[in-house]
Amino acid sequence: MDAGRLDRQFGFFREIDKEKEIGRQTYLADASRKENDAEHAWHMAIMAVLLAEYANEPIDVLKTVTMLLIHDLVEIDAGDTFAYDEEGKKTQHARETAGADRIFGLLPDDQQRQLRRLWEEFEEGKTPEARFARTMDNIQPAMLNDASGGRSWQEKGVFLDQILKRNQNTGDGSRALWEYSRKHFIEPHVAAGHIRLREQEEES
Amino acid sequence: MDAGRLDRQFGFFREIDKEKEIGRQTYLADASRKENDAEHAWHMAIMAVLLAEYANEPIDVLKTVTMLLIHDLVEIDAGDTFAYDEEGKKTQHARETAGADRIFGLLPDDQQRQLRRLWEEFEEGKTPEARFARTMDNIQPAMLNDASGGRSWQEKGVFLDQILKRNQNTGDGSRALWEYSRKHFIEPHVAAGHIRLREQEEES
Repeated sequence: MDAGRLDRQFGFFREIDKEKEIGRQTYLADASRKENDAEHAWHMAIMAVLLAEYANEPIDVLKTVTMLLIHDLVEIDAGDTFAYDEEGKKTQHARETAGADRIFGLLPDDQQRQLRRLWEEFEEGKTPEARFARTMDNIQPAMLNDASGGRSWQEKGVFLDQILKRNQNTGDGSRALWEYSRKHFIEPHVAAGHIRLREQEEES
Repeated sequence: MDAGRLDRQFGFFREIDKEKEIGRQTYLADASRKENDAEHAWHMAIMAVLLAEYANEPIDVLKTVTMLLIHDLVEIDAGDTFAYDEEGKKTQHARETAGADRIFGLLPDDQQRQLRRLWEEFEEGKTPEARFARTMDNIQPAMLNDASGGRSWQEKGVFLDQILKRNQNTGDGSRALWEYSRKHFIEPHVAAGHIRLREQEEES
């Protein structure tokens, strides 16, 4: 047993405990409070295991799940950037890269490289696993926004075109799941007025 | 696309959102609050990926991670039973089995059987994956109890023999990790008086 290696690994596990305190903008299904990054990652990891059958291309499920479990760790330093915060998005990449350097840097070199590569692969979104992981990352909050009565969309005054832009690659991971999400989670809240339409705003 | 199948799968994903509200007795590393089951599962899943190298026997990592992600879902119905609650433990199995029937029963039949088998395998603790998953389930709270200054052990007045009994199978998944946990997470808190010794109590 290499005690130095274990010390670095447990140093990392203690540090990532902070992800439980990084808040997101998505309400729990019962709308009692907003979820945090660790809860979000757990939820998506289970979804990926059980929904992998709908991926457009065959995926390595363990790689996809690991990607989902670790992809938000950089937010321990960078904070959560709301999907529709255009100002925050300008500095998001630089903040998150610095976070990746520090947080993955706590691990032994081989695992540091492994997680760093996985995080970059997720960010680039070009492999089947990254594409499917990003599908999960868009569908999980849509499901919760629907379950909680569209509250987050209403509070933030989100427009349909913003949601569609955010989801422009959701179908690249799974056409079936994007179709389901659009039909069951998004469209009913357009009809109910919880998601705004740009044209209506301009006319009124 | 089978819409009925997707409806059942998403019905399950909405239901398991409740795991984020099942509280545990373990404090976060910074002792600011106690963690919940979803956060606990997320933390252990990452630990399993990065610590699999210390398993006594080769393990299927995806199977182990999936087991860890889903093994506490029954607590949505059964509640969390504290590791040292001897009264609660008497009814724990019956409560959790009823929870498994209802919650896994939300899924399509094939996935219902898959998760039910995984949960039972974890409970029985007889396969390499179940043994290692149970090692994670004991080491993660020990790590957090240590990081938070032994607060949970102190508040509950836990005895060393109770901790050793709870950990009697921790070394079956990984001798190296049990040795590390005992030396770094448990023994310092015996020395500091945060964990009680039965003999001392009886003498005083």
